[in-house]
Amino acid sequence: MNKKAIILYSGGLDSTTCLAIARAERYAPYTMSFDYGQRHSVELTLAARYAPQLGAVEHQTVNIDLRRMGGSALTSDLEVPKNSNDKGIPVTYVPARNTIFLSFALAWAEVIGAFDIFIGVNALDYSGYPDCRPEFIAAFENLANLATRAGVEDRGRYCIHTPLIALTKAEIIARGLALGVDYALTHSCYDPTEDGLACGACDSCRLRLKGFREAGITDPAAYLEKD
Amino acid sequence: MNKKAIILYSGGLDSTTCLAIARAERYAPYTMSFDYGQRHSVELTLAARYAPQLGAVEHQTVNIDLRRMGGSALTSDLEVPKNSNDKGIPVTYVPARNTIFLSFALAWAEVIGAFDIFIGVNALDYSGYPDCRPEFIAAFENLANLATRAGVEDRGRYCIHTPLIALTKAEIIARGLALGVDYALTHSCYDPTEDGLACGACDSCRLRLKGFREAGITDPAAYLEKD
Repeated sequence: MNKKAIILYSGGLDSTTCLAIARAERYAPYTMSFDYGQRHSVELTLAARYAPQLGAVEHQTVNIDLRRMGGSALTSDLEVPKNSNDKGIPVTYVPARNTIFLSFALAWAEVIGAFDIFIGVNALDYSGYPDCRPEFIAAFENLANLATRAGVEDRGRYCIHTPLIALTKAEIIARGLALGVDYALTHSCYDPTEDGLACGACDSCRLRLKGFREAGITDPAAYLEKD
Repeated sequence: MNKKAIILYSGGLDSTTCLAIARAERYAPYTMSFDYGQRHSVELTLAARYAPQLGAVEHQTVNIDLRRMGGSALTSDLEVPKNSNDKGIPVTYVPARNTIFLSFALAWAEVIGAFDIFIGVNALDYSGYPDCRPEFIAAFENLANLATRAGVEDRGRYCIHTPLIALTKAEIIARGLALGVDYALTHSCYDPTEDGLACGACDSCRLRLKGFREAGITDPAAYLEKD
């Protein structure tokens, strides 16, 4: 029987590639999405729809309301910046988001007896979020092995897999295509239209479009406009 | 102006004492409770009611559904053990609970500009949970300082305060009484009646009653029966 793994899966380009990699590595994938009050919640519907097609054994959408806390353009009425050249941490950073996501993944992993958690963070073509860095992932892995039964009983060690962390966006796309990922089914925009069209101008769209350009491939996703 | 601090506050004996200590240390307390599908949800109503009386600047109840994950007698139909002498991690352990709670506390801290988080864990008279140990707390503090803006900008360092960690239950009670805590307003039972009477027999009630006995004080809380 294949080893179980939890995949943090938003339905976006990175996490879908991550799911394909986990399958290629012979894990039985359990996918997890989060409804955290994000304005781009269309991704949740798509994620739930495509997870089984992409081989998920079970898919779970966790409801957590980060809107009440605010602090990010993704969860409040702050405007999502378009065509921004700002340096530093962007306003789309959601405080402690990956810490919260990984905590829930750890809880589910412990319940189903999985020791492997995949997260599609990326330290190269990324948006400057502190919780996408390798040192953050290492700290969480250390925490996971102290926070749980694994910390006091000899049951196994948790491993946080970050197969995309050292890849450029173009390399991620090439890797996904080689594994048969249909990127028309993935969704990356922070500020989509009600019909689910990507804006083409937020940081996430621009990173994605740049990746496809560099990979020499046309992005099959539907855009309102492309830079 | 007093420094802001987040207090993980369930309305129980430990977290109420923790809140009193934070106030005595001149912090402006922001209290946070979690509705995680626990069977003892009466504590949430009481916590919200008493938080302002106990000096909370703001109180927040976060909804997270851990029931869907199961894995604990506190969030499923597993029976809460009574008068148990079992060794090891009890079935009331909720997978990754304190990791999840601290993650939300960290998010709120980052949004309001607090760097201090109080949690009433206790490594002496405790129930054998892995996420109550000092090494877990140290790992989370390390994580917090990598997961957030603090990890990449020089804004301050997060500190996880555990003022009860080395105290016996009797010492916690003595400390709280010295600070004016009214323990009639606190609630500890894992399996209360619908009227909010404590069962007197679950691990949490037994630890509490033992603490009061050792402190030489009568527990003012209302019990169905006392051992």
